[in-house]
Formats: sequence, C-alpha cells, structure tokens
Amino acid sequence: MKVAVIGSGSWGTALALKSVMAGNETILYCRTPEMAEAIQHNHENTRYLPGVEIPLTLQTSSDLQFVMTDANIVLMVTPSVYVRSTLATLRPFMKEGMIFVLASKGVERETGKLLTTVMTEELEGSGCHIAVLSGPNHAEEVGRGLPAASSVAAASLDIAEIVQQALHTSDFRIYTNDDLIGIELAAATKNVIALAAGICDGLKLGDNCKALLLTRGLHEMTRFGIALGANKDTYAGLAGMGDLIATCMSPHSRNRAAGEKLAAGESMDYIINHTYMVVEGFFAVSIIYKMATQHNIDMPITQALYQVLYEEKAPSVALHELMNRNSKVESH
Amino acid sequence: MKVAVIGSGSWGTALALKSVMAGNETILYCRTPEMAEAIQHNHENTRYLPGVEIPLTLQTSSDLQFVMTDANIVLMVTPSVYVRSTLATLRPFMKEGMIFVLASKGVERETGKLLTTVMTEELEGSGCHIAVLSGPNHAEEVGRGLPAASSVAAASLDIAEIVQQALHTSDFRIYTNDDLIGIELAAATKNVIALAAGICDGLKLGDNCKALLLTRGLHEMTRFGIALGANKDTYAGLAGMGDLIATCMSPHSRNRAAGEKLAAGESMDYIINHTYMVVEGFFAVSIIYKMATQHNIDMPITQALYQVLYEEKAPSVALHELMNRNSKVESH
Repeated sequence: MKVAVIGSGSWGTALALKSVMAGNETILYCRTPEMAEAIQHNHENTRYLPGVEIPLTLQTSSDLQFVMTDANIVLMVTPSVYVRSTLATLRPFMKEGMIFVLASKGVERETGKLLTTVMTEELEGSGCHIAVLSGPNHAEEVGRGLPAASSVAAASLDIAEIVQQALHTSDFRIYTNDDLIGIELAAATKNVIALAAGICDGLKLGDNCKALLLTRGLHEMTRFGIALGANKDTYAGLAGMGDLIATCMSPHSRNRAAGEKLAAGESMDYIINHTYMVVEGFFAVSIIYKMATQHNIDMPITQALYQVLYEEKAPSVALHELMNRNSKVESH
Repeated sequence: MKVAVIGSGSWGTALALKSVMAGNETILYCRTPEMAEAIQHNHENTRYLPGVEIPLTLQTSSDLQFVMTDANIVLMVTPSVYVRSTLATLRPFMKEGMIFVLASKGVERETGKLLTTVMTEELEGSGCHIAVLSGPNHAEEVGRGLPAASSVAAASLDIAEIVQQALHTSDFRIYTNDDLIGIELAAATKNVIALAAGICDGLKLGDNCKALLLTRGLHEMTRFGIALGANKDTYAGLAGMGDLIATCMSPHSRNRAAGEKLAAGESMDYIINHTYMVVEGFFAVSIIYKMATQHNIDMPITQALYQVLYEEKAPSVALHELMNRNSKVESH
C-alpha cells in the first residue's frame, strides 16, 4: 500500500508514523521544501511533534504530484478550514479507487457543511472513496506509541476494512464502523462540549460538575446526531464517549484549553490571535447552534457557548443558567 | 422533614450538610459520643471532611434512638460491609412509611448480594420504603458547595420525589429515576472500572488509553446491568457514565488511587492494611466476576482485575492481554 498523508501537523505526523510501522510506503506532505527537509534532517517534526523520532522510512515531500502518484489511501489531516481548498489542489492527482480518509475534525466555517459533504462535493466524479477516522487520539500520545484505538467509518464496510488493514498496529487499534455521519458529527460536536469543559476547569467547579457536564454533553451530542441520521450507539463508542472524555480531560486538548482561557476572561478574538493552533470548537459552536435551531434540536450547552462566544455573556453566568435550567426527572 | 444520617464519614457528613441547607431537621449519627461532641465543638468533621464548616443547626448524636425517632428519611451512608448489621441495629426504631435511602455503593462481601437486596431483607415487614442515591459525587466537593447532581431511584417515583424534595438544593440537584436496580448496579460495577483506570494511570498509559478503557468499561457495565434487569439508558446517565467519569478521573477516588498502588506493585492485602478507607472495588471485583460467570456475561475488564487481585497476575500483563483481546469491528 502507498499512503499519502496530507498535513504535517502533530496528528498528520503521528498517523504517518503509524502507517510506516504498519508496513506501508508512506509520504508526508509538507507545505514547503524547507519543512520537508528539516523533518528528514532532524529525524523529528520539531515544531509539531517534538521528542518523537521519525524513521528514515517515512518520506517527506512538498511535491504534491510525487506524494499522490499511485497512492491507495490519502489521509486528510489539514485544519478543517483548508479541507476544501486542499482537495481542489489534489484534484489533478485523484485516481479512481483511491480512498480519502478524513482525519480532521470540525465543520466548514463558511457554509456550515460537514467535511464529508465537502469531500463528497470535491471528489465528485473522481471515482474515489470517502472514509472518516475518529477516536480518543491525542497526537502526542499516539506518536509516542502509547496504546490507543480509533474508529474508521465508511459507507461500505469493505472500504473501512482496507483502511483498517493499512493503519492497524499493536499500539493503535482500528475498529470499523458504517455510521459515517455519526462518527463525523460526534467529532464535530464534542469540540463544543470541550470548550464548556475548559470553562468548567477554569472556574474550578470540580470533578462532579465536569462529569455532569460530560454526561449531559453526550446526551446533547446524541440528540443532534440522531436528528441528522446518525446511529445512537455510535455515541457510546470510541468516536463519541471515548473522544469526548479524552478531549475534555486532557491538558493536550486545544479546545479544552481555549475554554479555560474564556473562563479567565479572554475573548474569542484574543485567543484566536494569540494561539498558534486552530480552535475548531469556536467555528463549530456557531455552525452547530444554527443547525440545531434550524432543525429544532434542544442543545442548551451549545446555546450557552454561543452566547459566551458571540453575545458577550460571561462564562460564569452562562454556566449558572445552564445548571438552573435542568429539569428534575432523569429521563432520556 | 426529619432526616437521620447513618454514617459520619465524608459522604454522610456532606449529605447531612445538604439536608440542613434544604431546611430539614437533620441528625448525623456518630459511632461514639466523643466524635459527636468533637464535630459540634469544632464545627467541622476534622477527620473526614476537613475544611468544611458545619453549622450549629446540624445535630450530631451517638444515641440511635434519638437519631431515629420520628425520622422521615434515613440516609444509609455506612461502608457497604456494615449495611446489614447497621440495619439490624436500626430495626427497633423502624416505623412504617420511613424511607431508607442507600447512599453507600458496593455489594455485600460474604453473600454477593446487592445492598438493596440486603435492605429488602432487613426492612421486611417494617413497612419502610427503599431508595438509592447515586451520581458523580465526590463528598469533598459536595461538602464545599461546588455544583453537583445525583439520581434518586425508587420502585415508585412518588417515593423518589419525596427524597428529591428533601435533599434538592441549588448546588446539589436531585433527579428522580425508577430504575432502582440499574442505579445500584452501575454504582457497584463502576468501582471495578475505577481500579482499572488507576492501573492505567499508574502505568502512565495516557489519556487515549484511559478514554478507551472508560468507553469499553461502560459497555461492560451496561451488559452486566441489562442481563440483571436494568435499563440501558440508566448507564448513559448520572449514575452510569457520570459517576464513572468522576470516579475514574478524580484524585479523590479511593478505588482509582488503589489501582495506582496496584500498578506500583503493591498487593491488595498490603493496600487494605495500609489504607484508612475501605476500597469497595476490591470486594466488588470478586463478586461481580462470579456473578458474570454465573450469568454468562462477557466482562473482560472485570476478569482482568480478578486475575490481578486474586491470581497474582501483573497489572501490565493483564492490561496488555486486554488490549490484544479487542475485536476489530466496533459493534454494540
């Protein structure tokens, strides 16, 4: 198998490592020749995955034609805002039967479209397949070889199994799933809950409150998914509950950390301008809130985040209102 | 309302505080007159809930007759091993219509019986009602007034609502539920997963692995509950996922901390002899493993813990086997 990895951030680099270990010819695409050479020279992605040795067998290149030629699997690991433009750039190199695996999470900012929808549009007529990879996967840990697992979903399980076989290693287990929309919606919506969890941390509300938030958060995510055609059970799996827990609990999570900054009084604009990495949750809140309103789905946490980010409500006030909004019978 | 709180550990003391704040006449039972006087004198339970001020309106007493007379609600907050013997001691003071609320978690060590079964047996013929309180509730945080929520289940929602009205405050929200067995089974089984989570922490396997463990752990808990008559949705609620997350993530959790000690090579016997607090998970593992075997329920994490605790398997070996036991299709 030849695997092309489009995006050389921490997650792209970690996935490229797994692909190499699984025995594939693997090329990591870098935006500049300098970056491609630096990774080769240092045996390390010093900026995005420091401390993890990169073997000589992982090729790096800034030449898209070289990266894409004869690729069986293309891992899409750019920030969500660049998925469409990157696919347009890749268009000349698409061949029938190639599997494009979405490993980015989020929704398209301008249109509110799911990234699989963006992929469907951009791959139209190419004869390429679409899959989604999602799970509790902090890039740093996967890169370091700590045990982890992830789900790969595709409309056909046959396609998911090809990706599974290509990426499965003893420390990174891949499960197949056919609920493509559920896997992707869970990935997008959990970033919203992660922002709220960060606010909870920043306000020092404790573990009880955070567990309450995650429990109600997953219910809210599940309601949203079901309304849009997802399978409820997906939310109890790795891409649902698993990813939600890892994201909301880990110091590595950008979205959770951004929530802490919000709690400390920093505005969304300030955080965006002072953070190297993209906070997917900021865009997701607005888009998911609007989709929920449009489809008449009750999403109180998302609504509270929307008010914090876009209507200047104080996080403590929003969270207080959320706590007092609760009904008193536990029903599902 | 008069509320009797039987057990003056950290959780009993925190619940007694909530009861006082909710406006009930509340008496906290202490095993010795010295302890009852010390709490009154210090305005603090210095041993079990240090740093939390106890108001004068919370009465303390070691006189069971005084504590129980005219009580409407009796909160049972002893360690699980003492629930039966404590109920036997309370027998002379039981009056028809009293509601006994189980706030302890675990199973009876000698018999493997659920504590609600123990309560049913010990309350037989008394005309008293049974309820169970469970949720993501670290006593220290609830005592300090940080926001939290909990579920109260009873066979009849009317009974659950009486308890809800008695204990509900602005910082401790009570939800009613009628899945008594599900709430109690979730509480007992999560202690097993918490031990495993502690091992995961102790071995420094990272957040991805822990999220994976919790996700699979909740599946295992749910399978067990459904086989014994519980409602699946209970496991997605506060007493299931909520309590599991709080327990597995918090430094406060005795069971999680015990798992860390196991990972460091300490034996169960050594931990029992060097820990002031009772580790419910130790007893739960054996009993739940035997119940699962008896009912033919697949519980790989519980089985792995059983091997660690009772068959001297190294935690790292057990966890490694568990990771490699995984099937490759994510199905529920």
